[in-house]
This record gives sequence, C-alpha cells and structure tokens, in this order.
Amino acid sequence: MASTVLSFENPVFAAYATHACLVILKMFVVARYTSFIRCRVGVFTNPEDSKTFNKFFDTNAKFRLDNPDVERVRRLHLNDLENIPAFLAVGLLYVLTGPSPRVALWHFRVFTAARCLHTVSYLAGAQPWRTLFFNAGMISTLSMVVQVLMAGSL
Amino acid sequence: MASTVLSFENPVFAAYATHACLVILKMFVVARYTSFIRCRVGVFTNPEDSKTFNKFFDTNAKFRLDNPDVERVRRLHLNDLENIPAFLAVGLLYVLTGPSPRVALWHFRVFTAARCLHTVSYLAGAQPWRTLFFNAGMISTLSMVVQVLMAGSL
Amino acid sequence: MASTVLSFENPVFAAYATHACLVILKMFVVARYTSFIRCRVGVFTNPEDSKTFNKFFDTNAKFRLDNPDVERVRRLHLNDLENIPAFLAVGLLYVLTGPSPRVALWHFRVFTAARCLHTVSYLAGAQPWRTLFFNAGMISTLSMVVQVLMAGSL
Repeated sequence: MASTVLSFENPVFAAYATHACLVILKMFVVARYTSFIRCRVGVFTNPEDSKTFNKFFDTNAKFRLDNPDVERVRRLHLNDLENIPAFLAVGLLYVLTGPSPRVALWHFRVFTAARCLHTVSYLAGAQPWRTLFFNAGMISTLSMVVQVLMAGSL
Repeated sequence: MASTVLSFENPVFAAYATHACLVILKMFVVARYTSFIRCRVGVFTNPEDSKTFNKFFDTNAKFRLDNPDVERVRRLHLNDLENIPAFLAVGLLYVLTGPSPRVALWHFRVFTAARCLHTVSYLAGAQPWRTLFFNAGMISTLSMVVQVLMAGSL
Repeated sequence: MASTVLSFENPVFAAYATHACLVILKMFVVARYTSFIRCRVGVFTNPEDSKTFNKFFDTNAKFRLDNPDVERVRRLHLNDLENIPAFLAVGLLYVLTGPSPRVALWHFRVFTAARCLHTVSYLAGAQPWRTLFFNAGMISTLSMVVQVLMAGSL
C-alpha cells in the first residue's frame, strides 16, 4: 500500500504536487513583482543595486529603505514565507495519511485559492478581505495538521 | 524495505510527522500572538488595518512600523522561518536514512522542545537562555544533516 | 517502482538529499555569520542581547536596528528563505517524477552553486552578478516546477 502513495498515479499525491507548485509559482511572482516595483519607483535596498540600475538605464534611482509600496510587497512576501513552507510540509504528510481524494483535493484548492486571493487583497489594501483569506489558508493547513497528528505518535 | 519507510506504521516516521506538526503549530501560535499584540497595543503596519480595526472596535489605533513589542515578536517569527523549514526538510530525509528509532526520537524531541523554549525565552527577553535553546535546535538539525550527507552522494 | 524512488539507493534521490543538506548548511553559515557580524560591530536588535554581551565581554555594544552591515546579511538571509524552502519541496517532488539522473543532477548542482555564489556576491555587493546568480537558482527551480506540473493533475 504505502509503496504507491508517493507516486503520480495516486490522484491525491498528483493533486498535492500540482498545488504545491502553484503556490510556489505564486510566491515567485511576488518576488518578481518586488523587483518590478523597485525598478518602477527607483528605490533599492542596496547601494550597488541603485548604482547598477542607474548605469544600465541612465536613471536617478536612490538607495532607500522606506518606500511604502516596496515595504507592502515585502510584508506580503514575508507572510507567504510564514504560511507556504508549512503547507508544503504538512500537505505531504497529509497525503501519507491516505485521506479521501475528494476531501484532500478541497484542502489543497482552498489553500491555493486563499493564498492567491490574500496576495491580491494585500496589494489592493482590501481589509477585512485580506484577514479573511489569510484565515481560510490557515484553517485549511490546521485541518491537515490535526489529521496528521491523529495518525502520528509522540 | 523502502516501501514502508514513509508510512505511519513506521514509528520513526510517525514521530517525525507529529513533531513536524507540533513545530508548525508553535509557529502558528506566534503568528496569532503577533496579531494579538498588534491589536492590544493598537499598532499596525498597513494603513487599511488600523482603519478597519478602528471601524470595528471604535478605537484609535495607529499605523506605525516601530513598536518594540511588535518588532520583538516579528524577529522571533523570522527566527522560526530560518530554522523550522530546514528541520521539516532534513527531518524527512533523515527518516529515509533508516535511523535507530530511539536516536531519531531524541533528535525530534530536542528540536521541538528547543524551539518552544526559544520562543518563551525570546518573549521574556531571557539571555543567554535564548541563545542556548537556539543552538540546541540547530545542533539537532545539524546532527541530522551530517547523517543525511553520509547516506547521500554528490 | 515507486517503492524505491525515495531511497538512498536511487542516485537521483541521494543527490537531492545531499544538495538539500548543502543549501541548508549554507543557510546556517549565513545565520552564524549574522551573529558574528553583530558581535564584531557590537550592534544587537534586542536590548537583552547587548546587555548580556557587554556583561560577558566587557564591551560597550549598543542596541540599535540600523547597522548597514547587519542589515545586508539579514536581507541576504531573507532572500535565502524566499528560495531555499521552495527548492527543498519542489526538488523532492521532482525526484518522484522519475527524471533522468544526469539532468536531475545538473538541476541540483546549478541551484546549489547559484545560491552559494549569490551569497558571496551579496556580501561583496557585486552587481549585476548577484542578480545573475539569483536568476540561475530561480530558473533551476522553475524548470523543476514545470516538470512536476506536467506530471501532476489539478
């Protein structure tokens, strides 16, 4: 039994793998967006960055740490780091508990959708939506945590 | 042999899964605690957060980035992010090296206990305890890293 | 088949495990280096840290948040956190897609080398090298993401 759990022929594992990649891609999009915002507003956190940027593009970018747009994307990115690695680890352990495919799929879908909507509402400054989507993602992870804990032992 | 390593019937894997969930839960408690502190001291990092909070609770919360209590919890959270995902990944690889259950269990227990005590001593500002528990957690992870490296190949 | 994929007898898995440990070790070196820099320049982010340090070493370290050398290592560390956990998760899923050992090995090598060189060029303030190595690591991860997505299902 256990031998084929972590195989792409197991639909639960295949779904986990896909959703794991989707949230990682989302996180990479945020990383790219940070660079894009930095270049657009011309604010960099390292002196050598603004120097290189100005050399290549003949602009007047500054080295500063306090641009509100850049800081917003950075906080969003940090929030991803607090939630996505936890999902990646717990999700895999959850697959190994042998859950019902339908239930498992909805856990993965809710988490992935919640994190994408969290990103959009963070960038738009839309509260209380952001908190709502943050909690939806966390509840999905917590539900998997509980099921892994019930299967595990100390 | 390998087919049943990643199964909850393997006591080492079951113990890993449980401790992985415990440290993730601990991390989530820190995340919740950050929100709680923010609400109690009334300091938020996003203007829309303080606005929404004030609307719902009729308070006078401010948008500021420099509250020392909030920053302390955030530094603690960041320290978790630097150590816990590494443990989650290395722990799983270590399980696959087929360690002695007794030895493995103590690795997981030391890490989990060290990170919980690190959290408590960070919040209490208790040095040199915090550094001690930080190092205990790192040594447990490093010991697993060495054993995985000995089993692996370049 | 799937039963022996996650075993150190599978050269692809053994290589993944080794490279995973190497990047984690690299991340730990950065963590240690942060402490080292803090002690050398005598700048700590927690009041109890400078107090304890001064008591043990009879120095005059200060509690401040804005030392440029410390902040540089911290930004570097954060960049690791944005990229290395993603590699750890995707790399494992990629191993499970059963890739060609030669191709897989080069993915792991490129990522590990890129992250090490990224660290060195970040500390040296060497642009555009840093951006180049950052992108090399990300492209290696993205290539694995694409291959996992092609094997997975929604």
